[in-house]
Amino acid sequence: MLTFVGLGLYDERSVTLAGRDALRGADRAFAEFYTSDLVGTTVDELAAAHDVEIAVRSRAGVERDPEPVLAAAESADVCFLAAGDALVSTTHVDLRLRAEARGIDTRVVHGVSAASAVPALCGLQNYRFGKAVTLPFPDAHGAGTVPPSVVESVESNRERGHHTLCYLDITADDAHRARRAERGARRQGAGHEAERRDGVEPRNSRERDTYMTADVAADLLCEGWRDALGVAVARAGSPSPVVAADRLSALAARSFGGPLHALVLPGPLHHVERDALAALADTPEAALADHREAFGDDD
Amino acid sequence: MLTFVGLGLYDERSVTLAGRDALRGADRAFAEFYTSDLVGTTVDELAAAHDVEIAVRSRAGVERDPEPVLAAAESADVCFLAAGDALVSTTHVDLRLRAEARGIDTRVVHGVSAASAVPALCGLQNYRFGKAVTLPFPDAHGAGTVPPSVVESVESNRERGHHTLCYLDITADDAHRARRAERGARRQGAGHEAERRDGVEPRNSRERDTYMTADVAADLLCEGWRDALGVAVARAGSPSPVVAADRLSALAARSFGGPLHALVLPGPLHHVERDALAALADTPEAALADHREAFGDDD
Repeated sequence: MLTFVGLGLYDERSVTLAGRDALRGADRAFAEFYTSDLVGTTVDELAAAHDVEIAVRSRAGVERDPEPVLAAAESADVCFLAAGDALVSTTHVDLRLRAEARGIDTRVVHGVSAASAVPALCGLQNYRFGKAVTLPFPDAHGAGTVPPSVVESVESNRERGHHTLCYLDITADDAHRARRAERGARRQGAGHEAERRDGVEPRNSRERDTYMTADVAADLLCEGWRDALGVAVARAGSPSPVVAADRLSALAARSFGGPLHALVLPGPLHHVERDALAALADTPEAALADHREAFGDDD
Repeated sequence: MLTFVGLGLYDERSVTLAGRDALRGADRAFAEFYTSDLVGTTVDELAAAHDVEIAVRSRAGVERDPEPVLAAAESADVCFLAAGDALVSTTHVDLRLRAEARGIDTRVVHGVSAASAVPALCGLQNYRFGKAVTLPFPDAHGAGTVPPSVVESVESNRERGHHTLCYLDITADDAHRARRAERGARRQGAGHEAERRDGVEPRNSRERDTYMTADVAADLLCEGWRDALGVAVARAGSPSPVVAADRLSALAARSFGGPLHALVLPGPLHHVERDALAALADTPEAALADHREAFGDDD
């Protein structure tokens, strides 16, 4: 049996009770943190909290060499863990299909996903979002700034009056695992609880290079939409999320603390949504008024 | 303090550990099950599992008379519970804004939402979905079948090559609470565990009238899209979900068991998505081939 368990968004307490029970009952657990990440915990803390050994696999490892996971799941109860919902990435769906093809039973214990948590934190209505996009680091696609496909999706959503959720790139390079380990070691030295509570600043410049932050994203998007309204969401699912709305040019000059970040580009706003951005995201009145001017209402 | 806790999709074990802890630490808890519902448990079971008293409020009660919740949250730690993410409904965002306006601190503990769980169960990629729609019961909007706004959204998603997630209507009429109570009483009589495990059939015709099922939705959508591919998803988040893809006319003639249901209308499929629908949703080969003919590939 291969059980995909979504770990949710932040730390070892972001998993559901059903997911925790699946983990506790598992003979072995594998995890993949390259397509997303739990920044509020470490693999060791996760393993200790749920009393299970966790073997971390790289994304490439899951894709190119799924054999260890599949072989284990043929004769034992195996959990495969990932941040968020656990089956959002194609890599994980592919692993599930390989297991099914080999006659291994699979099941899914869903986790909280940024796809719903980010709109909820902003007070924006889920069903008013169009297609989501992922904004890559500029060097990841070879061009200068924003890929044309992202521009097209955002423009197309706007034309239809929809909001756009921009996921921000995570660099899954070889140094990534080393950074995780380093972070864990530093945390143990500094006292984990204290650092978790005020862990609102990126811990070093390399962390900024690993997880794209909302200010970097806003800066990239400034090229076409300097005065457009954006909503930066930092650490959705953590005890200390930040939600801040302003013109993209203004967001580009701010700092929103530690990862993970997302950025929302709103379309026309329903009056409750407008009230929510004013109250929950400290949106400057002038930025909201200009947005209303540009997009009209949707009440 | 007012903490919004998303209970997730199915039963008392669908909440996160962080949500469970918030519930355990609360002085009082209120809940609203009219905008969504946890069909795998009852309010009494939920209260017993988390050792907290839960006062159930109607949707209209939350909207028109939020005073009891706000007054309680002014002087005590209050949790406000809802299925899914807890802030997906405008009603709940409005309650949060009222609390903030009164100087009451609010926080959110997110829950698993159908918005991510349904795509994940189908093996369809979250970022390839366009705007979601809600399909209402025909009598809810006065017309014959499918509201024009739903048709427009589905067509517009298709034109852009996106999938559409159709949420299915829940009737939140006055008899709803009575049905919940009746279901709880029956379950206690019949043995809860046994009924939960094989609870794959709607329990009576009234339950079918309360929660729109995927066959009813497929039948409604047949008017325009008889031969189109649909994916019925029943009981996402439960231990026994059903995922079944076929032409809408074929889905309309099938039964997918107890609530809640959703229906997905796919756009062009990536090859992993096509493999997933074949393997995980028992899609007839001819239906997949016709879909490929109509929409092309997106590999």
